[in-house]
Amino acid sequence: MPKLYHFPLDPFSRRIRLALGEYGADAELVEERPWEQREGFLALNPAGALPVMVDDDRTVIAGIEALSEYLEETRGARNRVTLLGETPAERAETRRLVAWFDIRFHREVGRLVLGEKVEKRFAKPGQGGGAPHMKAVRVGLNNIRHHLDYIGFLSEARNWLAGDRLTHADLAAAAHLSCIDYLGDVPWSENAAAKQWYQRIKSRPCFRPLLADHIRGMPPPRFYADLDF
Amino acid sequence: MPKLYHFPLDPFSRRIRLALGEYGADAELVEERPWEQREGFLALNPAGALPVMVDDDRTVIAGIEALSEYLEETRGARNRVTLLGETPAERAETRRLVAWFDIRFHREVGRLVLGEKVEKRFAKPGQGGGAPHMKAVRVGLNNIRHHLDYIGFLSEARNWLAGDRLTHADLAAAAHLSCIDYLGDVPWSENAAAKQWYQRIKSRPCFRPLLADHIRGMPPPRFYADLDF
Repeated sequence: MPKLYHFPLDPFSRRIRLALGEYGADAELVEERPWEQREGFLALNPAGALPVMVDDDRTVIAGIEALSEYLEETRGARNRVTLLGETPAERAETRRLVAWFDIRFHREVGRLVLGEKVEKRFAKPGQGGGAPHMKAVRVGLNNIRHHLDYIGFLSEARNWLAGDRLTHADLAAAAHLSCIDYLGDVPWSENAAAKQWYQRIKSRPCFRPLLADHIRGMPPPRFYADLDF
Repeated sequence: MPKLYHFPLDPFSRRIRLALGEYGADAELVEERPWEQREGFLALNPAGALPVMVDDDRTVIAGIEALSEYLEETRGARNRVTLLGETPAERAETRRLVAWFDIRFHREVGRLVLGEKVEKRFAKPGQGGGAPHMKAVRVGLNNIRHHLDYIGFLSEARNWLAGDRLTHADLAAAAHLSCIDYLGDVPWSENAAAKQWYQRIKSRPCFRPLLADHIRGMPPPRFYADLDF
């Protein structure tokens, strides 16, 4: 079985776990804490970033950009599922939105909130560990609002974020938000449309493994796993 | 003809211009200065990032991630040229390296050097203009070295950076470096293999339009356009 190197609160790893579920594919999960910069992991991905998959034929696929496309080309093609779209224009819209969440949401929200509240908590002092800067956390949490607005706007104009079908755009947005939700920090009450969209995606079978995540020393709030939150 | 919104010293726009040449495709260039956050441009790409293409059928393709794949799917398919690779594993290696240069090189070198020396020079005070922080420039220029080492290492182990064929990985690396080269700041003498690789790609017809770039008030050094530099 392929091995997926991941961390439970890494949004990029989470998107791949969601995608595996939607493609009807499987992988053995191997937990990796990228801030430890383990030598064996850097040999798989010199960039030191999650996720990394080692496929059955030992092909190493390193990084979210390569891995999401690889799964579409292999698992998607095999099982006749597309998470990008049918036409070049549809796929361009999916990839535009994926970049929006992977770059902008992560820079404006995830890196601040998860970097301070999760990575600093688990990393050793020499690896960047320490007390969180609560000001950075507050900036990140404040920035969630315009992303919820954008998700609400898109999900009201379309069936899913990139158009008629569920795509990597939905999985990316949901993966990033779900990490913040694990910390109990998403202000769902502020945007009904965004909340409805999240309820729809959270109810899909692909989401179940994420809702079962439980990090030792950092349990999620009770509503984290509730479909009616 | 399709319109490509670009800026001459934007490395992402440059990769698309190189790719158009390699795919045997054409586009009308429209100069855009993204820091001006022009309303008409934000309507094309809410993320405000270059490049953006408007295709003949008015499809808008926004951002480097969407546009490079779109060109492969449309121009590459039409003209039987691939700049990603033939197999899923080859394409994964191309995309891993593209991410290396688009994310790491840009964060460690380009954003610092180009942000300080180019954007601050041309932007108005309210848009981020002002005197460059020379310390940031120095940090960026110092970071080039390990990227040249990586390019040298890859180009000695392989024919091109991702393998046997020229791919978007070469175009990405060359696009990022060429912006720094326009400023005369690449220490080519420090890595002979990286310099040889750059000479090979610089000699390709796709590179000619980039070598003819001339920004008013910021002329390139004489060797910028020399194939024997």
